[in-house]
Amino acid sequence: MKYILITGGAGFIATHLIEVLIENSGNFIVAVDNLSMCDDKNISKFYNKANFAFHKVELTNQHDLALIFKQYDFSLVYHLAANSDISRSFTNPSIDYNNTFNTTWNVLEQLRINHIKQFIFASTSAIFGEVGENIIDESFGPILPISHYGAGKLASEAFISSFAYNYDIESLIVRFPNVIGEYSTHGVIYDFINKLKVNHTELVVLGDGRQEKSYLYVKDLIRAIQCAWDAKVDKVDIFNIGGIDTINVSEIARIVVENIGLGSKISYTGGDRGWKGDVPKFSYDINKILSTKWIPKFNSKEAVELTVKSLIKEIW
Amino acid sequence: MKYILITGGAGFIATHLIEVLIENSGNFIVAVDNLSMCDDKNISKFYNKANFAFHKVELTNQHDLALIFKQYDFSLVYHLAANSDISRSFTNPSIDYNNTFNTTWNVLEQLRINHIKQFIFASTSAIFGEVGENIIDESFGPILPISHYGAGKLASEAFISSFAYNYDIESLIVRFPNVIGEYSTHGVIYDFINKLKVNHTELVVLGDGRQEKSYLYVKDLIRAIQCAWDAKVDKVDIFNIGGIDTINVSEIARIVVENIGLGSKISYTGGDRGWKGDVPKFSYDINKILSTKWIPKFNSKEAVELTVKSLIKEIW
Ligand SMILES: NC(=O)c1ccc[n+]([C@@H]2O[C@H](COP(=O)([O-])OP(=O)(O)OC[C@H]3O[C@@H](n4cnc5c(N)ncnc54)[C@H](O)[C@@H]3O)[C@@H](O)[C@H]2O)c1
Ligand SMILES: NC(=O)c1ccc[n+]([C@@H]2O[C@H](COP(=O)([O-])OP(=O)(O)OC[C@H]3O[C@@H](n4cnc5c(N)ncnc54)[C@H](O)[C@@H]3O)[C@@H](O)[C@H]2O)c1
Repeated sequence: MKYILITGGAGFIATHLIEVLIENSGNFIVAVDNLSMCDDKNISKFYNKANFAFHKVELTNQHDLALIFKQYDFSLVYHLAANSDISRSFTNPSIDYNNTFNTTWNVLEQLRINHIKQFIFASTSAIFGEVGENIIDESFGPILPISHYGAGKLASEAFISSFAYNYDIESLIVRFPNVIGEYSTHGVIYDFINKLKVNHTELVVLGDGRQEKSYLYVKDLIRAIQCAWDAKVDKVDIFNIGGIDTINVSEIARIVVENIGLGSKISYTGGDRGWKGDVPKFSYDINKILSTKWIPKFNSKEAVELTVKSLIKEIW
Repeated sequence: MKYILITGGAGFIATHLIEVLIENSGNFIVAVDNLSMCDDKNISKFYNKANFAFHKVELTNQHDLALIFKQYDFSLVYHLAANSDISRSFTNPSIDYNNTFNTTWNVLEQLRINHIKQFIFASTSAIFGEVGENIIDESFGPILPISHYGAGKLASEAFISSFAYNYDIESLIVRFPNVIGEYSTHGVIYDFINKLKVNHTELVVLGDGRQEKSYLYVKDLIRAIQCAWDAKVDKVDIFNIGGIDTINVSEIARIVVENIGLGSKISYTGGDRGWKGDVPKFSYDINKILSTKWIPKFNSKEAVELTVKSLIKEIW
């Protein structure tokens, strides 16, 4: 039996990852989460599986985390726990210091102490700050995050590197773009639907609607992580994962309003970004991941449409 | 009066920095240090100055640090406190997590809370791991440190960036090379002299002696920091500081032995590095700092010779 730990295991992306990993009966999946950003509704469907266990754990507490590592003989750890509400730490940077960075630090310490040799980390395109029109590949520098969330992820990458080299931990850093799909717990589509629940007549969009990003369908992401792991060469290997195209916020708003079908008006607060720390325009060079056998099945617009339809069912 | 805080203020480089800053009677210099890596012998000479104060402070303690920031109305902070014994954290990475990274986090929080708008950070070439024969400029990536010390510094840079952008803090990141000179508290020359004190007949050098690095004389570094600050353009600006040439460890050993004059034999433990996490060969592209008016007055060999002579006086 291969014991696999997934931190942030009750979250959006973790749910999809577990769905795939649990199919292999040689895997025993342990999900840990403090349930701070969600409840267990997404993962409760796994409770009847013999090869799945969930534990409510506060990862910033090294002592509590150590107990889980004593319980199971993990050979692989996916670290997905993090703050996922980027804008909220502007007035309280400790949120990302604790949940985005210190969770990583604590997990790394457990890898070291328990001699665990395989590690996969959910990093993010948000580590790159204002990069203008630059095309960003894995060797881009300097990396100057503008959000504390991005800083917490980049700080995590730094210690992942030193732990990997010092304790021979095969480490994969996968930098996710905007990932969307069923079970989303946050993000622009989730926010738009919730806003429209409160106000049927008007959807107020932060910024001017022209922020343009790549959105990746979550099932495409899960396949990308697997392909990156298989293609990994260096002790610490980094893959930027992204979609092949972009979509702007206006278009997303339009798709949401159209699918809800109440003829709501769309208005904009103006300015080039949703909040301080938001990056208006961003484009990844994803040649490295494309050089594996991976290619996304859905483009940004299709990913948005799939997500809007499923989220309307889930939360409308 | 301009109040300037220097953390790690009893250390080697801080002593030289204070010597320069204190000359301007419009500056009031506050040095804080926990005296963990040194005593106050280097800085006690400033105790009779009206524009200098030293406080023994543990920077990993946010509460204690806050008291200092309440006491003085700082307009500029130099953050120099860090673990400076890189090899020692291999078995205990918390040393760098605490002293190299968390000291930075705590200082950043004080900048935010107290609306301080100018910050200078002592980073290091050690953030770059095994870069082979690559020439490293400020846009080099990916940065994959192999020591926890390098990781702690890179993690610091990450949060410096997000704090700078979110709270409008003019931030200068200066990546120091190997810096040497009088008042050294550590480093290869310091170690060699101490080894020879114990064993007059033989100097045992870790590695094969061919690790080749650039050494910068500390007074050249202090001028470089000033030039970088004057030339700073971006909210967060990064300068790699380095010497114009390199010197290898054998040559340093030879200069030490020659100056001590006991005819000691030099032997080598072998292998391409001194310890796991040591980087055998490294070369900076320093065109950015050279494009300011700065140029080092001493090359690596001259810096070594000056340092050997002064350290023999200080610690032999
Ligand atoms: N969804 C995206 O677009 C996206 C983009 C880039 C990176 N990522 C990263 O992917 C990972 C998963 O993201 P997601 O979208 O599924 O978000 P999510 O919020 O659904 O999942 C994160 C989970 O971590 C948990 N968590 C947070 N702090 C914790 C703590 N201190 N102790 C224990 N659990 C804690 C939360 O409760 C949550 O369930 C995160 O690391 C995120 O930063 C996501
Ligand atoms: N000397 C070099 O070659 C070199 C190279 C690159 C970077 N640097 C950086 O320059 C700065 C100064 O280095 P240095 O060579 O003068 O080293 P140093 O050891 O002489 O100075 C660092 C000081 O920080 C203090 N300190 C450490 N942890 C502390 C804590 N928790 N609370 C309060 N004080 C604490 C130590 O007591 C010490 O006096 C450091 O940040 C170092 O990482 C030095």
